Amino acid sequence: AAVVRKKPRYVDLEKCIGCRQCEYQCPVLVPDEEQGGFAARKAIYIPFANAIPQKALVDASNCILCGRCARICPTKAVNYADQPEEITLRAATAIVATGYDVTPLRDKPQFGGGQLANVITAMQMERLLAPHGPYNRLLRPSDGKQPESVAYVQCAASRDRTVGIPYCSRVCCMYAIKQAMLISGALPLADVTIYYIDIRAFGKGYEQFFQNAQAMGIQFVKAKPAITGNTADGGVSLRYELQEGDGRIVTAEHDLVVLSLGLVPGWSPEGVCPLACGEDRFIKTVKPKLFPNLTDMPGVFVAGAAAGPKDIVDSIAEAGAAAMEASNYLTARPRPTAKAAG
Amino acid sequence: AAVVRKKPRYVDLEKCIGCRQCEYQCPVLVPDEEQGGFAARKAIYIPFANAIPQKALVDASNCILCGRCARICPTKAVNYADQPEEITLRAATAIVATGYDVTPLRDKPQFGGGQLANVITAMQMERLLAPHGPYNRLLRPSDGKQPESVAYVQCAASRDRTVGIPYCSRVCCMYAIKQAMLISGALPLADVTIYYIDIRAFGKGYEQFFQNAQAMGIQFVKAKPAITGNTADGGVSLRYELQEGDGRIVTAEHDLVVLSLGLVPGWSPEGVCPLACGEDRFIKTVKPKLFPNLTDMPGVFVAGAAAGPKDIVDSIAEAGAAAMEASNYLTARPRPTAKAAG
Repeated sequence: AAVVRKKPRYVDLEKCIGCRQCEYQCPVLVPDEEQGGFAARKAIYIPFANAIPQKALVDASNCILCGRCARICPTKAVNYADQPEEITLRAATAIVATGYDVTPLRDKPQFGGGQLANVITAMQMERLLAPHGPYNRLLRPSDGKQPESVAYVQCAASRDRTVGIPYCSRVCCMYAIKQAMLISGALPLADVTIYYIDIRAFGKGYEQFFQNAQAMGIQFVKAKPAITGNTADGGVSLRYELQEGDGRIVTAEHDLVVLSLGLVPGWSPEGVCPLACGEDRFIKTVKPKLFPNLTDMPGVFVAGAAAGPKDIVDSIAEAGAAAMEASNYLTARPRPTAKAAG
Repeated sequence: AAVVRKKPRYVDLEKCIGCRQCEYQCPVLVPDEEQGGFAARKAIYIPFANAIPQKALVDASNCILCGRCARICPTKAVNYADQPEEITLRAATAIVATGYDVTPLRDKPQFGGGQLANVITAMQMERLLAPHGPYNRLLRPSDGKQPESVAYVQCAASRDRTVGIPYCSRVCCMYAIKQAMLISGALPLADVTIYYIDIRAFGKGYEQFFQNAQAMGIQFVKAKPAITGNTADGGVSLRYELQEGDGRIVTAEHDLVVLSLGLVPGWSPEGVCPLACGEDRFIKTVKPKLFPNLTDMPGVFVAGAAAGPKDIVDSIAEAGAAAMEASNYLTARPRPTAKAAG
């Protein structure tokens, strides 16, 4: 059996009509993590533009209990007394698909340690480029300047024992190339440079995508730079040893630097269930070559980035394989009696 | 319905007892493709050391019909009059899992065009390193010398529009590293060099494996060499532009050169069924991101290297996903009536 803790929403879903009156009235401003921290949101809010359902929730850790939202709500949906709920699920099998997280910027002094406004993560760039992005265009966070030069630092916290992430994060090459092409589309005059160790364009059509990016004029430089600080005009200065050509030490400046950070597990089974993890802290697969979905707990399967960094296509293929394993497990074992399942 | 053509074996499986008397008597010697062409086999033979069943078959294209095998056979199992058989399978769904092939060496003049004895394919090296290999040790094919210096040329026919294979073959980096480590184990004094463009060590544990290879002393050189010919002592000479350091043109010599050839489809649906292929000639997946197993024929799914280059782990995950899709397809559609199913 699995116990799920449902957090209180402090808004009655039946009553809320998504009119956003509460959001307009709320006096609190919080950096919006859904926008990479670039825009602000209220303490009562509809979480993001295409959230389903389009209904409000209260972020209790930021709410100041001023009561304005409750007063303005036309359907009296706000309920500060809402309590967490424990739901017990009885299941004969389970699939762990807990996704990934990126390494926090503050751990990496060689990449600015999160202290330089114009050194952002690729997830933040994803927001800057998104149709519902914070600025509706690509602007540099520190001063709203349209960047003339954008650089990507690949393996910013991957393939690097010094930061505790010796493995390849598998998806960074391709998302950096995708974003670089979107940037070139949005700002045709901007220079885009990708600093890389190896371009891992391994999937179907990936190599061609990489070649298209080169043909579009995106620069690829084999080197792993360190960030040395801000320039006078708010740009970012880098230093690296060139791995191509004459191998000299180069200093470069860019208006905006994007870090392709490593992928780390989104969840740990510690204290929740006795699932084993590998040295890399991802869920351990006990027969990784023959049964990539098998964990060390019978009946518990794993799929996607819970078992290691993985792109969308591979995650979907693995989800299908995990569903098949779970289905096989259910049909192979004796059905639980009504009492045992009770 | 699918029509399967079963080739004649010319040996009665019921009668054959696997005694190999026929094989010993047969006067024909044919290069054994199961041994990378390095050893010879007979025209009647048990296909390979761990074939199941351990029963003989006749290779009709090389048999000279001398009759010796039929005369020696203690159970009278040889039957030269055996005929091909057509078997009709009725199936409601099918999974295409037709694997891959490697590009033929003769197409690549820049890699010796298959004319240099000591330029071999990685599949041939796999045989040289195998427990049931042709020499039981690692020897150079031309003269049986124990090689002191072995080189791998990565992307020998991949990532290269000039040879018609623009895509990455996905598995070559890791098999080359695996083989290089086995070579270092078998011949501790030999130098092993891997010429590469990018090391694509993208899977779980792959980066660590790559680092172990570097720690073992395997040399990695970023360059794509061309083979210029044989040296006086039977070695192979290469020429390449160094992509690291000072970018100069380098000439090198190795006792044995292994080509990491590109992966191409193992089968074409042309003339068999109307399945669509992509530009790369692999089976086309119509919704590659969301349903990696879907082809353009309803009820026909694809898995593994039939849809593009893929390693063992990813092929197995895809096989599971394809099985699930096929099972969903079977349960979602109305069951065929007894009459329709014929």
